[in-house]
Amino acid sequence: MNTVSRFPVPALADLPEDIRARIVAVHDKAGFVPNVFLAWAHRPDEFRAFFAYHDALLEKAGGLTKAEREMIVVATSALNHCHYCVIAHGAILRIRAKQPLLADQIAVNYLSADLTPRQRVMLDFAVKVAERSHEVSDEDLAALRGHGMTDDEIWDIGAIAALFALSNRMANLMALRPNDEFYTMGRAAK
Amino acid sequence: MNTVSRFPVPALADLPEDIRARIVAVHDKAGFVPNVFLAWAHRPDEFRAFFAYHDALLEKAGGLTKAEREMIVVATSALNHCHYCVIAHGAILRIRAKQPLLADQIAVNYLSADLTPRQRVMLDFAVKVAERSHEVSDEDLAALRGHGMTDDEIWDIGAIAALFALSNRMANLMALRPNDEFYTMGRAAK
Amino acid sequence: MNTVSRFPVPALADLPEDIRARIVAVHDKAGFVPNVFLAWAHRPDEFRAFFAYHDALLEKAGGLTKAEREMIVVATSALNHCHYCVIAHGAILRIRAKQPLLADQIAVNYLSADLTPRQRVMLDFAVKVAERSHEVSDEDLAALRGHGMTDDEIWDIGAIAALFALSNRMANLMALRPNDEFYTMGRAAK
Amino acid sequence: MNTVSRFPVPALADLPEDIRARIVAVHDKAGFVPNVFLAWAHRPDEFRAFFAYHDALLEKAGGLTKAEREMIVVATSALNHCHYCVIAHGAILRIRAKQPLLADQIAVNYLSADLTPRQRVMLDFAVKVAERSHEVSDEDLAALRGHGMTDDEIWDIGAIAALFALSNRMANLMALRPNDEFYTMGRAAK
Amino acid sequence: MNTVSRFPVPALADLPEDIRARIVAVHDKAGFVPNVFLAWAHRPDEFRAFFAYHDALLEKAGGLTKAEREMIVVATSALNHCHYCVIAHGAILRIRAKQPLLADQIAVNYLSADLTPRQRVMLDFAVKVAERSHEVSDEDLAALRGHGMTDDEIWDIGAIAALFALSNRMANLMALRPNDEFYTMGRAAK
Amino acid sequence: MNTVSRFPVPALADLPEDIRARIVAVHDKAGFVPNVFLAWAHRPDEFRAFFAYHDALLEKAGGLTKAEREMIVVATSALNHCHYCVIAHGAILRIRAKQPLLADQIAVNYLSADLTPRQRVMLDFAVKVAERSHEVSDEDLAALRGHGMTDDEIWDIGAIAALFALSNRMANLMALRPNDEFYTMGRAAK
Repeated sequence: MNTVSRFPVPALADLPEDIRARIVAVHDKAGFVPNVFLAWAHRPDEFRAFFAYHDALLEKAGGLTKAEREMIVVATSALNHCHYCVIAHGAILRIRAKQPLLADQIAVNYLSADLTPRQRVMLDFAVKVAERSHEVSDEDLAALRGHGMTDDEIWDIGAIAALFALSNRMANLMALRPNDEFYTMGRAAK
Repeated sequence: MNTVSRFPVPALADLPEDIRARIVAVHDKAGFVPNVFLAWAHRPDEFRAFFAYHDALLEKAGGLTKAEREMIVVATSALNHCHYCVIAHGAILRIRAKQPLLADQIAVNYLSADLTPRQRVMLDFAVKVAERSHEVSDEDLAALRGHGMTDDEIWDIGAIAALFALSNRMANLMALRPNDEFYTMGRAAK
Repeated sequence: MNTVSRFPVPALADLPEDIRARIVAVHDKAGFVPNVFLAWAHRPDEFRAFFAYHDALLEKAGGLTKAEREMIVVATSALNHCHYCVIAHGAILRIRAKQPLLADQIAVNYLSADLTPRQRVMLDFAVKVAERSHEVSDEDLAALRGHGMTDDEIWDIGAIAALFALSNRMANLMALRPNDEFYTMGRAAK
Repeated sequence: MNTVSRFPVPALADLPEDIRARIVAVHDKAGFVPNVFLAWAHRPDEFRAFFAYHDALLEKAGGLTKAEREMIVVATSALNHCHYCVIAHGAILRIRAKQPLLADQIAVNYLSADLTPRQRVMLDFAVKVAERSHEVSDEDLAALRGHGMTDDEIWDIGAIAALFALSNRMANLMALRPNDEFYTMGRAAK
Repeated sequence: MNTVSRFPVPALADLPEDIRARIVAVHDKAGFVPNVFLAWAHRPDEFRAFFAYHDALLEKAGGLTKAEREMIVVATSALNHCHYCVIAHGAILRIRAKQPLLADQIAVNYLSADLTPRQRVMLDFAVKVAERSHEVSDEDLAALRGHGMTDDEIWDIGAIAALFALSNRMANLMALRPNDEFYTMGRAAK
Repeated sequence: MNTVSRFPVPALADLPEDIRARIVAVHDKAGFVPNVFLAWAHRPDEFRAFFAYHDALLEKAGGLTKAEREMIVVATSALNHCHYCVIAHGAILRIRAKQPLLADQIAVNYLSADLTPRQRVMLDFAVKVAERSHEVSDEDLAALRGHGMTDDEIWDIGAIAALFALSNRMANLMALRPNDEFYTMGRAAK
């Protein structure tokens, strides 16, 4: 029951050098290796593409804050019932937002979470992209601009929701198990 | 109404060399530049990650045929009402499968399309990953293996459905317009 | 797999004279006999009632154009995943509208099709009748009148959506197969 | 609030002779004119087609009993929230089945109604045709045959569900009001 | 098929005195014992809690009328397909509202029932609480106040919808059968 | 934003003696007063009925364990997006089950949680009662008995799901805010 993935998980020694280096770097920073790195390494080319995409959107400077980017991940992953993404990115959100309650609030019902009006508008749009993107209209973009969002921010909101549409489905396909460490990270009050 | 994308589309001359080279190569092969390349080039890093992911799954040798991979794209993109993906990948499917009717059949209702039993099982699983991946179970994988699918093929089915969960949402976010050429490609009987 | 219907299809020679005459007339005009005529002739009284209803709404002069009437058929049939109706009426729409791309656009997502504002309002209402007619309100009719629709046009929009609610279910019940000819009709640019 | 329809209702004297004759005959038999006749007469050709279709399926001898045919109408009309059809055909069902409770039971939840196993199978299939006809499969028909249904009965079940898919949408479009008489007809125990 | 509940129904003689007294009182008033009392008495503590809750909300004086409270029960129970609650409370509504048609109208589609504007607003909110309470917002409450509802009335609307969310599920769990008497009560015109 | 409820919250001194005593007892045991007690005390009779119902089902000895009862609360409250119930009962579940990860797993997707086969069957049934109780059948109960469930346990599963159908709707109506204490309770490994 406690295996990391439904698919084979390669040994670190068997991985291509660039992937092993990334995993070692993550371990050195976090103190453990999040299971997503080990499980996705089953397919090195897909690993490289996924994390390149991830870094381009989640580690990007400017525009949305890093905490806001994680809010999008948690809100949409909760709607997709993605065990790994809600638990792991909930932890990252707690740390980045320095609000220990926010991740759980968003995971249950972002409509009742402690959000600023801008964050609420952001998550409304992210959820629309996640659940019924074919209804996204020019009027939606005009409304977001009316709330002060730039076109680059609008793309980022939609693109993060889209990337985790992929990520949630892959994690559910793998039955990817979150590391126990994530459940308690960042829970102490700031 | 006939613009390619809701977001800025860069001029070819302004693109990084690797992206321009890819676009030129596509043009030389297809005789035109599919709009997805121009529109996604608005974000070079995301362009690179997306097409690397795409090539790893759609151009892969062995296991699923290339036509089967396109069937997954068309079936799941139709459920997401993705204008670009259904029209463009419908054309590619017609060409790869050498069955001029199949793409339209799958786009309307894959349950009544001219599929082999193996293809039907493949699309049932792809649609489950696309629509309710959190219900994917060990029993689903056992059933697929019972139909002769290898674990590598099972991953590919799920991963293609997951990649186009992303792609459909991005195309809908951009209001990405398919090139007129796609509508008629591959319609002549084999 | 390539049979026309799940139910018996009568030979032309065995049909009542009026039904045979209708089928001969269709053949002379189109160059082939659309399968819907042969399959529905299994029940002559229902054949007569259905085509009388069909002609009253689809061949009617004045008000909505014939192309607009077919747009309603394609948009609602796509939501009901009706293989026969989307393929056959898509062909008729291409011919009547003299817009070779419009039928496929509407079949995938009418919200992103090349529609006039009047056509968009028309399809929004048709889809509401098709999917949640119990929510149709006096306010909906007032809004349509505000867009210049007459009460006769409003009835026609709703009645065509209602007739194809029947037709889609019958075609799906029969597993009615569209003739191969429909897939390519009207695809040449005007 | 108490008008019969959202659209014009013609005076009896203004109707074509055949339609007036039908309405007079109904009045003589029932003691009142059900509103559906008056409202649909707004469009004489559609009136003729609808009632020809209706009679072909609801008044047909052999196969399904007339009460069973009405059960299909009530079960599917309830799911479409069709005020007129549930109230009017509920009354007809009470009279035809000589079971005063059955119509209300089916209207609320056919799964808990006093049905024979054959009737339950019949309504399961009718509801599938009403709600997701694109999923009807050869296996469904084989199962119905296994419960002793003939192919003619299977067509009838599906066709009645399809006809009331039309009828429910038209009644909801018109806001067709059931006559007060229907609410109490057939409620006395047999 | 005609049993009262899927679970054991205690004999009157075996019940605790307070519960028996309540049942005797109901019998003396109504002339029969509604099955809900007998079936729920299988669990005396839950019986006491349920009817205490019920009386606090349905028998309350002031604010919403007793008929309005029953409208909420019928509208939300119909959406939950609760056989017992729609039939039994439909009868009570007929009696309390002195409108013999209203209960059936609300059960089929409250949107087309003979409601005052205030009652329509009341049922819109009750249905929102019943079906998607997590979307209830401060704006909803402000709108209700704008229609003249007090905060005590707003609580009552939501609380009755919430209580019958429980009651509908319990009745469906038990397969609780309504007494035959309910079907005809209150049908005579006032 | 940080208020406890949308409705007035009475001062402890203003409460009836029995309610105040209950609240004092809870405070003495837990070290704080969960907001549900304060907010529901706005309506003393409903407070008494709710907590009587709650205690009858959640504090009951025998049959389901107390941890299993809390699993039902968390699984169904998550589907109803009830902020208060998921956070507060998640804490109670962590403490009662002595499994610090289980509550978060069930809240995201009980299908991928660390459950025994018996617990999985229990939650499948609880979710069916919560979401589509009108489909509960005799076959469902037979299957539960086949997994060793007694009829008393089956009632309890359904009744807890039903009680929290009420509780979730009330908490969402009130916008009931969970106490900060709940988020971290029981997270230390056993």
